[in-house]
Amino acid sequence: MSMDLPPALEARIAGLAPLVRARCFDAPRHVTRPVMPPLEEYTDLLRGVWDRRWLTNDGELHQRLERELEIHLGVKHASLFCNGTLSLLVALQALDLRMGEVITTPFTFPATTNVLHWNRLRPIFCDLDPVTLNISPERVEAAFTDQTRAILAVHVYGQPCDVAALRDLGAQHGVPVVYDAAHAFGVQLDGRPLLEWGDVSSLSFHATKLFTTGEGGALVTADTALDRRIRSLKNFGIADEETVLAPGINAKMSELSAAFGLLRLRDVNAEIAARAEVTAAYRRVLDGVPGLTLPPQPKNVALNHSYFPILVDAAAFGLDRDELYGALRLFNVIARKYFYPLTSHYEWDRCYPSADPANLPVAERAALQVLCLPVYGELGAADAGAIGEIITELHRAARP
Amino acid sequence: MSMDLPPALEARIAGLAPLVRARCFDAPRHVTRPVMPPLEEYTDLLRGVWDRRWLTNDGELHQRLERELEIHLGVKHASLFCNGTLSLLVALQALDLRMGEVITTPFTFPATTNVLHWNRLRPIFCDLDPVTLNISPERVEAAFTDQTRAILAVHVYGQPCDVAALRDLGAQHGVPVVYDAAHAFGVQLDGRPLLEWGDVSSLSFHATKLFTTGEGGALVTADTALDRRIRSLKNFGIADEETVLAPGINAKMSELSAAFGLLRLRDVNAEIAARAEVTAAYRRVLDGVPGLTLPPQPKNVALNHSYFPILVDAAAFGLDRDELYGALRLFNVIARKYFYPLTSHYEWDRCYPSADPANLPVAERAALQVLCLPVYGELGAADAGAIGEIITELHRAARP
Repeated sequence: MSMDLPPALEARIAGLAPLVRARCFDAPRHVTRPVMPPLEEYTDLLRGVWDRRWLTNDGELHQRLERELEIHLGVKHASLFCNGTLSLLVALQALDLRMGEVITTPFTFPATTNVLHWNRLRPIFCDLDPVTLNISPERVEAAFTDQTRAILAVHVYGQPCDVAALRDLGAQHGVPVVYDAAHAFGVQLDGRPLLEWGDVSSLSFHATKLFTTGEGGALVTADTALDRRIRSLKNFGIADEETVLAPGINAKMSELSAAFGLLRLRDVNAEIAARAEVTAAYRRVLDGVPGLTLPPQPKNVALNHSYFPILVDAAAFGLDRDELYGALRLFNVIARKYFYPLTSHYEWDRCYPSADPANLPVAERAALQVLCLPVYGELGAADAGAIGEIITELHRAARP
Repeated sequence: MSMDLPPALEARIAGLAPLVRARCFDAPRHVTRPVMPPLEEYTDLLRGVWDRRWLTNDGELHQRLERELEIHLGVKHASLFCNGTLSLLVALQALDLRMGEVITTPFTFPATTNVLHWNRLRPIFCDLDPVTLNISPERVEAAFTDQTRAILAVHVYGQPCDVAALRDLGAQHGVPVVYDAAHAFGVQLDGRPLLEWGDVSSLSFHATKLFTTGEGGALVTADTALDRRIRSLKNFGIADEETVLAPGINAKMSELSAAFGLLRLRDVNAEIAARAEVTAAYRRVLDGVPGLTLPPQPKNVALNHSYFPILVDAAAFGLDRDELYGALRLFNVIARKYFYPLTSHYEWDRCYPSADPANLPVAERAALQVLCLPVYGELGAADAGAIGEIITELHRAARP
């Protein structure tokens, strides 16, 4: 690790160089790291694929993974996709929304807002609940017009949206509620799967996610007719050898990915338990540090501990979020400004009146304050505690 | 194999039952079958992925496969995709075409026309050259309007389009030429890669393709700025950690697929050679059978022998295409009506004036007459010859 510290940061933080020398990790602690299934077991599972010579198009492992996901997640239908962007794109197409507006959040990954663009739908950005950082039902209610076609909400960091309120608003206005549940694998609300809520929810199985197939995703729904339409649309809209129902796309998952998923699914609860220890270690050290807001722990929610986003208030903490991000890198801790910037800042989205920062004060502040700390089971409570100590010492040094 | 022959077909074909008894394959001969790399070598290659814990986002094997494809195909830039539909979708987005028309062919797989829909571009269907079944330059020329934004042509069955004429038309009207080259892996024209032609070409690596990664695809281009834009767009439009350039999508290929591709690339020329023997065997038996048109073999083209489409003239052959397709199934020969129907018949496309069947007589006839016979290396010349004999005997029996 180089000791060439940024002079501006060194000047702001008393005694940074000795602190780095004492605390720096010998290898990078990235924001996340995928768990790999035993390679021998992966090979064993592929033997059948090799025998069948069936690599994609609803293969045997693909079917098995869909059935096992339905059981594991407690949902009626799970349909696999090549990734979690295409699944969300197809969800919107499957709902057959006419051109118009979709009420959504700007505090998300580009995919959420981009799939509206691909579906010829205009985003109406609305502001967040300051605690969960999810879309605020009051703001949703105020955003309805006669052009509203759907609500597209995100369970950010696996924190449940106010699902009952959103359901009521959707029903009241006769529009579906779609969840980008990329972060919400396995989350329970009041002892039930969070994924039961909404007309359809989209999961991501990207390598950075709790449950991964390398690239991958899924749609879950309780609506059998919608599920059937989804399955056709992800395969070009093909219904049978001579019939195409709609201008679909190819969003199919291959057997190579499904095999990986089957093995990971077996161990995903162990990974959640290990991540719970990591987030608990962060909480033990960071709870009460001035200027830091830790993620909420609602009593009626079983979180999946996928992320540990902290909000950094510069005045109270002594460093702003970007300074803390830069300082942590000196210690080989690679945190992530996630989500930053807001999608409402993109050139093609900021033209909408709802993208005005004045309309989105909570989201604007969150994007500037949020920092996701490393979370993955193997990191362990000891390393998480050490990262927490580094953050605490940075605070002490910056606000002596 | 059941001997319950369709009575109508039995009546049309004298002595069908004894013929089926004598000639039926004991196991299905599907239209294609993927070649699998040795599973041990696949596992060996994955060992590095497991060590690196890097499953996607421009992984090491992904980079290697791109470099090896560039060398193998003789192209400047090859960019990998999760499938060949997303690659074509991103190609059109990368060219930054304003809303308008794209001159294209209706004789193709749904993907080609569907990606126009996703890019808010209107297809202008034009008719085919009756020999190659590719878009006819004369018809392209007549289709230009002030709304024309691009030419999207398909090298069907790996038969090259009239690339020089299309280049000239594109240049004359100031619009790019895009090739759906899903069938054209490794095809040479005048001793040069066919993929050198056009502004960008899209390949498919689906399991049914000559070169496969299970699901997969690629874009090839000689335009370095376009390649850079393509790489950003397939990863959400992200340029760096804090910059998103355009409303891109996720179309990334994972390491699991790239590893498969690296091993298949090594042997793809052997597969082409084996398929050449299969198509040669078909030609030996079927050449001269009344009512059948075999695919052309232009002297200046090195085909990849991916497909063997025959055109069935019912009056001269004695059976129409659908009857021949049905009759072959009785022999356990699973041919494919590919492409049928035309994409201009889809409900959402047939509204365009250019979709009028009167505008597309060659394409309409081809879609009703074409039948792709099984082609894959392992089929072997003996089985291909036997399938050819079955077809010949069906002709004799139907036109005694």
